[in-house]
Amino acid sequence: MEYRKLKDEDEDGSSAADDDIENLRGKPLSVAASLGGGPVDPKWKRKSMVTLALTVLTSSQAILIVWSKRAGKYEYSVTTANFSVEALKCALSLAALARIWTNEGVTDDNRLSTTLDEVIVYPIPAALYLVKNLLQYYIFAYVDAPGYQILKNLNIISTGVLYRIILKRKLSEIQWAAFIILCAGCTTAQLNPSSDHVLQTPLQGWVMAIVMALLSGFAGVYTEAIIKKRPSRNINVQNFWLYVFGMIFNAAAIVIQDFDAVVNKGFFHGYSFITVLMILNHALSGIAVSMVMKYADNIVKVYSTSVAMLLTAVVSVFLFGFHLSLAFFLGSTVVSVSVYLHSIGKVR
Amino acid sequence: MEYRKLKDEDEDGSSAADDDIENLRGKPLSVAASLGGGPVDPKWKRKSMVTLALTVLTSSQAILIVWSKRAGKYEYSVTTANFSVEALKCALSLAALARIWTNEGVTDDNRLSTTLDEVIVYPIPAALYLVKNLLQYYIFAYVDAPGYQILKNLNIISTGVLYRIILKRKLSEIQWAAFIILCAGCTTAQLNPSSDHVLQTPLQGWVMAIVMALLSGFAGVYTEAIIKKRPSRNINVQNFWLYVFGMIFNAAAIVIQDFDAVVNKGFFHGYSFITVLMILNHALSGIAVSMVMKYADNIVKVYSTSVAMLLTAVVSVFLFGFHLSLAFFLGSTVVSVSVYLHSIGKVR
Repeated sequence: MEYRKLKDEDEDGSSAADDDIENLRGKPLSVAASLGGGPVDPKWKRKSMVTLALTVLTSSQAILIVWSKRAGKYEYSVTTANFSVEALKCALSLAALARIWTNEGVTDDNRLSTTLDEVIVYPIPAALYLVKNLLQYYIFAYVDAPGYQILKNLNIISTGVLYRIILKRKLSEIQWAAFIILCAGCTTAQLNPSSDHVLQTPLQGWVMAIVMALLSGFAGVYTEAIIKKRPSRNINVQNFWLYVFGMIFNAAAIVIQDFDAVVNKGFFHGYSFITVLMILNHALSGIAVSMVMKYADNIVKVYSTSVAMLLTAVVSVFLFGFHLSLAFFLGSTVVSVSVYLHSIGKVR
Repeated sequence: MEYRKLKDEDEDGSSAADDDIENLRGKPLSVAASLGGGPVDPKWKRKSMVTLALTVLTSSQAILIVWSKRAGKYEYSVTTANFSVEALKCALSLAALARIWTNEGVTDDNRLSTTLDEVIVYPIPAALYLVKNLLQYYIFAYVDAPGYQILKNLNIISTGVLYRIILKRKLSEIQWAAFIILCAGCTTAQLNPSSDHVLQTPLQGWVMAIVMALLSGFAGVYTEAIIKKRPSRNINVQNFWLYVFGMIFNAAAIVIQDFDAVVNKGFFHGYSFITVLMILNHALSGIAVSMVMKYADNIVKVYSTSVAMLLTAVVSVFLFGFHLSLAFFLGSTVVSVSVYLHSIGKVR
C-alpha cells in the first residue's frame, strides 16, 4: 500500500505495446529496410524505444511493489519518497541537458531559461496530481484497497474521453470499441473472489472514483498538450520544469503531512535498499511517461501500462510462484484483442 | 442438471441478436421504408423474426431451468423427454406443412416424399449429437458441472472455425476478433468464485471438452450445410426429416438407457407442468434454430444464444432476486462490443 501514492503520481491509467504493431503496419518499407540492414525511420525507432521502456519499467515497478510487500513493511514517509523521485528526475534531466550542451552547444530549443508564457502551465499537472492524491486518502473511507484497484481502471475511459475532447484527436469507431474492451479486459484480469464488494460502493465512493479518474486523465492529457505545444523544444528542458513544480508541490506535502516525523527521525528514516530501487524505478518510469507524451501519446501510454500489468502477472508466476486465475486469462485475451483492434483500426 | 442434455441437443454453442444491427446497416432503404410505412424487405424481416424468436426462446429456456431447480427435483427420464421434444417438433412441422398444402397445393419443394440422395445426410447431425451426449456422461468424471458450463464456451470458437472451413464462408479480421472476445466475454459473464477449478482439469477432460465442442460445432455447421444445399426446399420438410432421425436416435437411447424404468413406471412417469413447458420450449427453440440456419447462419445463432444468456441473467434478477456479479457486467460489456464489431466488420 505505501507505494501506491507514488505510483499513481507517475503514471495513471495507461499503455503502448501496440505501437510496434501499428508502426510495423504503417511503415513496411522502413521495417524492410531495417531487416535488410538499411536505415530505420528514426521517429519510429524512438517511439518504439520509449514505449518499450515504459512497459518494462512499469512491469518492474509492480514487481518491486510485490517484492517490498514480501520483505515486510517499511516505515519510510511516502511524501519524502515522492519528493526524492521528483528531485531525481530533475537531476537526471539536468544531466542529460549538460551532455547535450557539451555536444551541441546551447540553442533556443535546449536552453533552460524560459518565459512566463511557457512556464505558467507547468504547475498545473503537478497540482492536479496533488489534489488527486489528497482525494485518495478519503476514498478509502468508502472503498477497500482491492476495490480501489478495480475502480482505477476508470482512468482508461477518462483518458480516452479527455484525449478526444482536449487534444481533439480522433479515434476510429473500432479504436473506441478497442478502448472500451481494454478497460473491461484489464478489470477482468484483476478480478478476485472478493471483487464483487466494489458493487456495494456507496454513491460518494463512485463520485470520488470518477472525479479521481477525470483528474488523472486530465493531468495526463494536459501534460501531453504542454509538451506537444512546442515540438522543437528539448524534452529534457520540458521535463526539468515539470519536475521542478513536482518538487515544490511535494515539498509542500511534506510540510503539511510529515513535518514532525521528518524533523524528529530525519528525511531518509526507514529507507532500505528496496526503497531506493523503487525511487529509482519511479524516476525512470516518470521520464519514460514524458517521453511517450512527447513522441507518442496518452493512448499509447494507456496500452503500454495495461500490457505491463499483464506482463507483471506472468513474471510474478515465475518469481513468486503466483497462480494465474481464469479471469486473468480471459482478461489478457480481451486486452490482446484490444491491442490488435487498435492497431488495425487506425483512422485513415 | 437433468435438463442439460436436452438443452445441449437442441442448440449448442451459439447466437444472432446482432443480426438486426447488421441488417439495419446493410439495408437502410428498407428500414427507412418500413418506418415510413412502406414495404419491408421480406428476407430481412424473416431473418430478424427467427433471430428474435431464438433469442427469446433460449432466454426463457434457461429461466425455466432455474424455475424447475427451485421447484425441486423431477424424477422423469431425460431420454423420454428428449424423444418427446423430437416428436413434438415433427408434429409441428407436419402441421405447418398441412396448412401450406391447403393454401398453396403440393409442389416439388413442399412435398414430403424425398430421394435417398436428399435424405441420406439427415441422420448425421442427430448421430453427432448422440455421440456428444454420450461423451457428456463421461466428462463429469473430470470436470464438475460449473466447470463444464465454462468449457462449453469452446463451442463458440469451434463453430467459428468449422463455419470457415466447412461452409467456406469468410469472416473479416474484425469479425474474427469479435468472435474471440465473444467467447471470452461469455465466459467472463459466467465466472464465479469457484471457476478457477476448471484450470485444474486433467488433460483427458480438456481433450473431451474440445472433442465435444468440435462435435457440436460440426453438427451445427453440417445442419446449415444440409438445409442451405436446397434453398428452395420448404424448411418444414427439411425439419421433418431432421426430426424423424432425431426421434429414431432418441428411441434407441430410451431402449439402451431407460428401458426398464419406462416399462415399469410408464413413459411419462414424473412429468409435471413445468416438464411439459420445458418440452414445449425446447421444441420451439429447436425449430427456431433450424429457421436461423435456413435464413441466417451459425454465426447469427452463436450471437443469439450469447445475448440470450445475458438476457436470462438480467431477467433472473427480477424473477428470482439473483445478484449480478462484477464479472457479469464486464462480460456483458465485452459481448456487447463484440456484437457491435461483428456488425461493423462485415466483409465487403
